[in-house]
Amino acid sequence: MSLTENMNSSTVKFEDIEKARERIRNYVFRTPLYSNLFLSKRTGADIFVKLECYQPTGVFKIRGAFNIELKNLNLIKERGVVTASSGNHGLSVAYAAKTLGVDCSVVVTKGANPDKIKMIKLFGANVIEDGPTSDSIITRAHEFSAETGRFFIHPFDDPDVISGQGTCGLEMVEEKANFDTLIVPVGGGGLISGISTAVRAMTPECKIIGVEATGVPSLFESMKENKLVTVEDPKTIADGLLGQTIGKLNFEICRKNVDEVVLVSDDSMRQAVKSLLFDSHLLTEPSGAAPAAALLSGVYKPKPGERIGLVISGGNISYKLLLNLLTENYQVPQASA
Amino acid sequence: MSLTENMNSSTVKFEDIEKARERIRNYVFRTPLYSNLFLSKRTGADIFVKLECYQPTGVFKIRGAFNIELKNLNLIKERGVVTASSGNHGLSVAYAAKTLGVDCSVVVTKGANPDKIKMIKLFGANVIEDGPTSDSIITRAHEFSAETGRFFIHPFDDPDVISGQGTCGLEMVEEKANFDTLIVPVGGGGLISGISTAVRAMTPECKIIGVEATGVPSLFESMKENKLVTVEDPKTIADGLLGQTIGKLNFEICRKNVDEVVLVSDDSMRQAVKSLLFDSHLLTEPSGAAPAAALLSGVYKPKPGERIGLVISGGNISYKLLLNLLTENYQVPQASA
Repeated sequence: MSLTENMNSSTVKFEDIEKARERIRNYVFRTPLYSNLFLSKRTGADIFVKLECYQPTGVFKIRGAFNIELKNLNLIKERGVVTASSGNHGLSVAYAAKTLGVDCSVVVTKGANPDKIKMIKLFGANVIEDGPTSDSIITRAHEFSAETGRFFIHPFDDPDVISGQGTCGLEMVEEKANFDTLIVPVGGGGLISGISTAVRAMTPECKIIGVEATGVPSLFESMKENKLVTVEDPKTIADGLLGQTIGKLNFEICRKNVDEVVLVSDDSMRQAVKSLLFDSHLLTEPSGAAPAAALLSGVYKPKPGERIGLVISGGNISYKLLLNLLTENYQVPQASA
Repeated sequence: MSLTENMNSSTVKFEDIEKARERIRNYVFRTPLYSNLFLSKRTGADIFVKLECYQPTGVFKIRGAFNIELKNLNLIKERGVVTASSGNHGLSVAYAAKTLGVDCSVVVTKGANPDKIKMIKLFGANVIEDGPTSDSIITRAHEFSAETGRFFIHPFDDPDVISGQGTCGLEMVEEKANFDTLIVPVGGGGLISGISTAVRAMTPECKIIGVEATGVPSLFESMKENKLVTVEDPKTIADGLLGQTIGKLNFEICRKNVDEVVLVSDDSMRQAVKSLLFDSHLLTEPSGAAPAAALLSGVYKPKPGERIGLVISGGNISYKLLLNLLTENYQVPQASA
């Protein structure tokens, strides 16, 4: 089995995202998009949150997972699937596989978020703890696919995965057409490449801002160097942002579509998780809170009245971290001047 | 102004709920309803959760609030509204009023959940701290309405409020028609009277189970005595269940529609909040977790394979309680044998 059999298309078109939306309609929620009063007051901008943390798996990844699994359903019912993921992609592929009656294996990094591993197992998948990094487990999953004939699902560098994630952007623009700016977390680049493809087709003037952790600036550096850069020693509390190399296809798309990448510190993500919880009753994980962190820390400074959509990408925070955050002294975050 | 001007209809018909649904469609979410694997495994039943904790105000009360405010929009734009609520109803009326451009006052009990008070103020309403009990603040809000001409919105004993809450049941049955049982939290009876009216019209054979706190058994006692009973000394950590007297109209409806009322202890609600958080990544408040508490504590014992819908009514837990729960020793709850 060729490692790239499901990478036969090297672009993502808007029509692919529209098709993905039809394909996944019965399995994935159209998540809420609404005004966040607290963040709007704090920033002077008009802030909306798209709550992907409310998907059945707590994360947007379910969109890409269902899209690629449904598109290849006959094949994968026969062969099963394998993927690699530090957590959210893995549990979403497992959830989709369970829903569709498909056998599933997930290669995870050693020391991955134990709550996510627990969810992957709850969804009936076989968990293989392997390599130390996001790149190494992708290689291992590839090998496992070659050894076993299982269908390999790349966590982000795949047109069908990207098209699935893009449905999130399609929904946002359909519902509130006049965004000035969308702020999107970036791990391997699946979400932002999908969303930006949808947005460029629908409202080309809308700015697309990516957010990465300061300890994993893979898209930031790649855009600066104008070539793919691997972050050798990725470090962040946001396991959802741990993509040490942006996908090839994702980078091609981001290069065209993304206006700016900003970096947020672990501390600012901690503050943002707390702010969303304490001020808006939203349970998020650090990667999901990263767009709010960009606003609250001031690394993205909106204009007064700017209409901004934040993609709150996930809510699967580990309980250890949640407890740790709740027992810290909490102060309402101040946007830097 | 008559205290009962907005109580001109003394029944709730299925058509009222259908009309309410059309009226509130653009303001209220059709919240997710999906299978909960953890609770299904634990109980051997087929458990679905309806996530009203994902409404913009974190609670189902927004349905009734928008229904009555939209129905009386011209009047209330002129006069403003006043309501009484230990929190969730108040913040939902305030949110709807802010959205619709209506002036709003909320009478709350002294010592009410400070996080909910903060949300009411964030939504721009005037907060009046008064009486010690749910009954006393309703009386005070009535008086305030008579003094000021503001339109009074009863937190539950009102056909338009009940019709609004009923839209939750309409959505559940529309989406999964073959429930054997729905389990619904009971405070003043607004939610269960609305839901049960919808369900009786759509799938009359479905059982309706109410859940109250052992310390506030107002519907339980009223059904036993076959007359309205006031709980003189209501005590529970679940501020959403603090209805010391069921509404008159609500009781009439419940008497016809509700099959059984079960009582859950504060401790079992604490365990259920923790289980939903740790096992399903759902942030709930004790009243919202009460239906899960009924299952996990064994006060409601499902048949194998019974298709049960749990109304997870709200997520506005106080941070003090959340912290308290997270720092307790956590054990996966066991259903009693």
